[in-house]
Order: sequence, then structure tokens, then C-alpha cells
Amino acid sequence: FGSGGMQTVTLIPGDGIGPEISTAVMKIFEAAKAPIQWEEKNVTAIKGPGGKWIIPPEAKESMDKNKIGLKGPLKTPIAAGHPSMNLLLRKTFDLYANVRPCMSIEGYKTPYTDVDLVTIRENTEGEYSGIEHTIVDGVVQSIKLITEDASRKIAEYAFEYAKNNQRASVTAVHKANIMRMSDGLFLRKCRQVAENYRDIKFTEMYLDTVCLNMVQDPTQFDVLVMPNLYGDILSDLCAGLIGGLGVTPSGNIGANNVAIFESVHGTAPDIAGLDLANPTALLLSAVMMLRHMGMHDYSKKIETACFNTIRDKKVLTGDLGGKSKCSEFTAEICQRVRDMD
Amino acid sequence: FGSGGMQTVTLIPGDGIGPEISTAVMKIFEAAKAPIQWEEKNVTAIKGPGGKWIIPPEAKESMDKNKIGLKGPLKTPIAAGHPSMNLLLRKTFDLYANVRPCMSIEGYKTPYTDVDLVTIRENTEGEYSGIEHTIVDGVVQSIKLITEDASRKIAEYAFEYAKNNQRASVTAVHKANIMRMSDGLFLRKCRQVAENYRDIKFTEMYLDTVCLNMVQDPTQFDVLVMPNLYGDILSDLCAGLIGGLGVTPSGNIGANNVAIFESVHGTAPDIAGLDLANPTALLLSAVMMLRHMGMHDYSKKIETACFNTIRDKKVLTGDLGGKSKCSEFTAEICQRVRDMD
Ligand SMILES: CC(C)[C@H](C(=O)O)[C@@H](O)C(=O)O
Ligand SMILES: CC(C)[C@H](C(=O)O)[C@@H](O)C(=O)O
Repeated sequence: FGSGGMQTVTLIPGDGIGPEISTAVMKIFEAAKAPIQWEEKNVTAIKGPGGKWIIPPEAKESMDKNKIGLKGPLKTPIAAGHPSMNLLLRKTFDLYANVRPCMSIEGYKTPYTDVDLVTIRENTEGEYSGIEHTIVDGVVQSIKLITEDASRKIAEYAFEYAKNNQRASVTAVHKANIMRMSDGLFLRKCRQVAENYRDIKFTEMYLDTVCLNMVQDPTQFDVLVMPNLYGDILSDLCAGLIGGLGVTPSGNIGANNVAIFESVHGTAPDIAGLDLANPTALLLSAVMMLRHMGMHDYSKKIETACFNTIRDKKVLTGDLGGKSKCSEFTAEICQRVRDMD
Repeated sequence: FGSGGMQTVTLIPGDGIGPEISTAVMKIFEAAKAPIQWEEKNVTAIKGPGGKWIIPPEAKESMDKNKIGLKGPLKTPIAAGHPSMNLLLRKTFDLYANVRPCMSIEGYKTPYTDVDLVTIRENTEGEYSGIEHTIVDGVVQSIKLITEDASRKIAEYAFEYAKNNQRASVTAVHKANIMRMSDGLFLRKCRQVAENYRDIKFTEMYLDTVCLNMVQDPTQFDVLVMPNLYGDILSDLCAGLIGGLGVTPSGNIGANNVAIFESVHGTAPDIAGLDLANPTALLLSAVMMLRHMGMHDYSKKIETACFNTIRDKKVLTGDLGGKSKCSEFTAEICQRVRDMD
């Protein structure tokens, strides 16, 4: 990314509470004078020329040009018949790594403290291949697809991430005792890549064992890398340990720095438009985005203002245990950001 | 089961600490005068006539005759090339329901209290089909197999279990938003079966959401029913909430009352033979067995003696926070059982 000047980012506000938490993020970025210009695009499922579900061409072009996106929650009514737009976005831009840092937040009480781990999830294949068949009436198969390429890429991503973020260890999470060929292949690639990172400790653990150990002592984990479905499960489990999806950021990373950062909570239609939503997850995703773009000073400033606001417990949204509105919580963070200048 | 007289049960002591914890259970059963006669059989992987891996015919015949088994841990070195004997036993006797009650144990401190749930796992198919292929070099697929029959059977088992155990609700755990056909079929069967149990509340929840909610508040769950792999994961996660695999029982149930009860922890080779092992998981599995056989008085007596021993914290094995030997812990439970007469 060019240093200095303004960078344009595609903003997909999303549905339900999406627009109001997006507004909150924009306000905080403005207060921080972050050199980001937003290009707002809506994403809804539409049918492309071949009858396939696609994201709207305008959104696609915007992302192709800007390379970086920030995204609120998108609703996916199963009844609508189209695939989850979240998944379609990951697929369209080949965002092969789903990265979810999970850190205990000071002042936000949960049964666990000192959690500091990152789940890195293969984001393109595995159980999410979408390939399913009816063999005979009443007998269905779903195909879990594991490739050498995608496994190597995600393993490399995990070790690079560990290296660049001063992390001591990477744990490969698998069920190669059961899925010997598919998870076996995934595990083999992790082992091979580990050879090139001698300074980072590599361990392997069964998914069930990880879950058990995770709830007993999450502080033993650092970077975890795994196939798609296991990442879906573990990232939510870990989010639960530190306060839920309302406070956990997420990034989907592809080749050539292309990336979409998103809050992974739902659209919360029951409180949409009422100025009650908590923008923390989207804000922390935007902080991840700034870091990804090399804008470390801005990311640090905004993150600190957000964490301090939560720590001080004076201005909090309802889900965080307070009584403030989204706009008040946002104003508080803006104020703290400005005070840092 | 015939009431009154002695019942013969196949005992598979298992590897590592298996024999010593089996001895502990036998002693406690003797102290309780439980009318159980043990038929001890070893289980190791052997090759059958067709070159397929089978369990030893003697063990098979014993189970075919007795219908009920109790089993310690079995080692499965991946290098040995044979499938997990645990899985082979489940398959050989078509033990389609894996049942793991998970209850907080008084006096054994964990971050959670008042956990009282049961995971019911489909035990024969799903991701455990064992069907895998290499499509082309570097591209592997594993097949998740979901059938209408097995889905209906496990759903029926779950609701019958709920009914017979005064449980208020059953939650189907799935990812039908992703695996629309396979998990979709599973879910459909659960819904259909639910229709026949109007007194039991039926809910559906995504696996990732269950994991998140589980670590935030496990007391919201009651009976959970799910495909094979999800059960593997969730049952371990839940075990972690209440103290781990050393204190959680498990039963594998098939048609016509055929069942094998087992402790699902490992063989702990490092402490095998040292009289340090904790027999609780195997003992509580044996208690489940007695209940399954309709011997409720004996099951209650032994369970109470075990829980009281743990609650009183005077005679505990090392993993439970004490300094006592397996034999001392066992003797304490025996004494309490006798005192109840
Ligand atoms: C929305 C849903 C399809 C998605 C998934 O299953 O990956 C979500 O749970 C996530 O983790 O981002
Ligand atoms: C031993 C192993 C094959 C087994 C499984 O994966 O089912 C175990 O984890 C279990 O839960 O009983």
C-alpha cells in the first residue's frame, strides 16, 4: 500500500444493524483522522448471466479496484435459496485465510482471563465445498474436499502470521485419526511447512482434544490452524470465551493483500435502527484492516480508545452491560481518540 | 433383562491403566453386591478371513451372548494401520447411539456449575464413514454419509431418552446452512420425530452457535442430538466444562438393548501399573450400565458413594487434586457402599 495519501476502502454496511455500526466506525475513523476514504456498496444476492448467484458487479468492481473491504453483517434467509453472501464474498475474491484473534478484554468479565490466541481457518474448501449428492432415496453424501495447494497455502499463512506477530507456536487442529486421507493431507502439509519455521513451535492436536483443553485452559493456545469447518466451530467457541461475537474481529485474507474484514455477528433485526447496537466487533475488524494496510499508528490509537472505553465501564451498550446508545458509545471512543492527539 | 438373578457382562479391561481401573470397578461392584458376573475378554485388532480388521471372535461371541459390555481404554497406534478398536466395536455391534451425560460434580471445582446435559451422537455414519478417495494427485475427498434411517433412529433415541429421563428439551445440532442436503436430511428427520413428542420442547441450533453458547452458559442446554463428528466435538467440549474425560461416563447403545459402556479417556501409559489412575469415568460408565439393565438401586448406591467420595475431598486420586492411590480411592468408595446397607 502506498504510504502517506488517502486509501479507498470498499464499505459493505450490510443488513439490520449493519448501517448504524458502519456509521459508528466511519465517525471514529474521522475522529482519528485515519486516511481512509470509504466507497459504500450494497451486497445482495443476484443471478449472474449463467444463472449462478453472484455479488452485484458494482461491489465486485469496487473490491477489484480497492482490494480492501470492510463489511457488516449480511442476512441470509435459508428460504431465499441463495448461498450465504458471506461465503460468496470469500469465494469470489479467493480469500483463503480466515483470521480471528481472540483476546480477553480488560474490564469485560468472563470465566476466562488472559486468553490470547488466533484461529486461522482455511476458508475455501473442506466441508464447505458445496458438493452434495443423493445416492439413492434417503442416502445423501456431502463431500469434504482437501487439496494439497489450499492446505499448503493456509499452513504457510499461519506460520507467516506467527512470525510477523511474534507468536511462539502454531497448532494444527485435525481429525486425521478418522479422516486419514483428507485431514492426513492437511496435516502433512502443515508438518512440511513447519520445517521452514524452526523458531516457531509446531504441535498437532485432535479437534475434540482442542475443544476439551480450550474450555479447561485457553491460555495454553497461541496460533491454531485448521480446515474450514473446524475453524467455524473453534472460532465461535473461542469468541464465547472472551465475550461473544459482539467483541471479536475477523479478517478474510487472499493473495496480493486483497482482504475483507468483517464482524461475524448477526444482523440483529430486533434492535436494528434503534441506536442500541454495539459496533465493537466491526470497529475491531476495521482496526485489523488498518494493521493489514500498514497503518499501525491509527490502528493502535483506535484500538486503545475502544478498549479503554470498555475497561472504564462508564459508557457501554446494553450487550456490554451498560445503558448507553450506540451513538453515545461511539462519541466516547471518538473523544478518547481526539484526546490522544 | 431377567430380574433377580446374576447377569453376565463382557468386560474388556483395555490397555494401559485399563486393567487397574477395571479391577477397581469390580471391587466396588462386589462391595455393592451387584448381581453382575464378569466375563473378561481382551480386544486387539486381528485380521479376519477376508483380510478385514475384526475384533477377536472370542470377544465377539461373548458380546453376542451377553449383549452388555463394559470397556476400558484401548490404544490405537495410528502406525499400526488398523482402525480405532473403539470405532470397530461400535460398528461391529451396530451401536448407533453414543450417549454422554455431563453433570457438574459437587466439590470438583470448574469454571461452571449446574451443568446437566446429555449429548446424543449418531455413532455409525456421517464423517466417520471411512470412505475417502484421491481424485487426482493432491486432491482428496472424504465422504460424509447421512441416511434417513440412521437419522430417524438417532432422533427417536434422543426423544425416547428425553422422555424416559424426565428431560424437558431436545436440541438438534447441525450445519444445514452449509451442508444443506446431508445435515438438511438429518434435521428434517429430527423435526419429524419431534412431532411425536409434543411434551418435549424441540429446538435447532447451528453447531458453531452451540459451541459459543455452551461456553457462555451451559445450563441452557438439556438433551442435544447430532451427527457423528459434531458429537465427537461437543461431547469432549462438555466433558471439559465439568472436569474432563476422567470423570465422564459414556454408553454406546444399539438395538435390542445391546450396549457397550466405556470410559473415553486414554490409556495413560505413563502412569499405567502405578496404582495412580482415576477409575471414576469407568465406574460412572458402569453405573450407566446398571441403569440400562434396570438395576436402579445398585446404580444409585454406587453413584452416590462415588460422588460423596469426591465431594468430601479426603481420598482423591492425583488428577482429582488428591494424593491417594487408585486402590485407596476404590477402598473408600467400597466402604461407603457397604455403609449404605
Ligand atoms: C454465516 C455462516 C455461513 C458462516 C460460516 O459457517 O462460515 C459463519 O458461521 C462464520 O463463521 O463466518
Ligand atoms: C478414539 C476416537 C476414534 C474416538 C472418536 O473420534 O470418536 C474418540 O474421540 C471418542 O470420542 O470416542
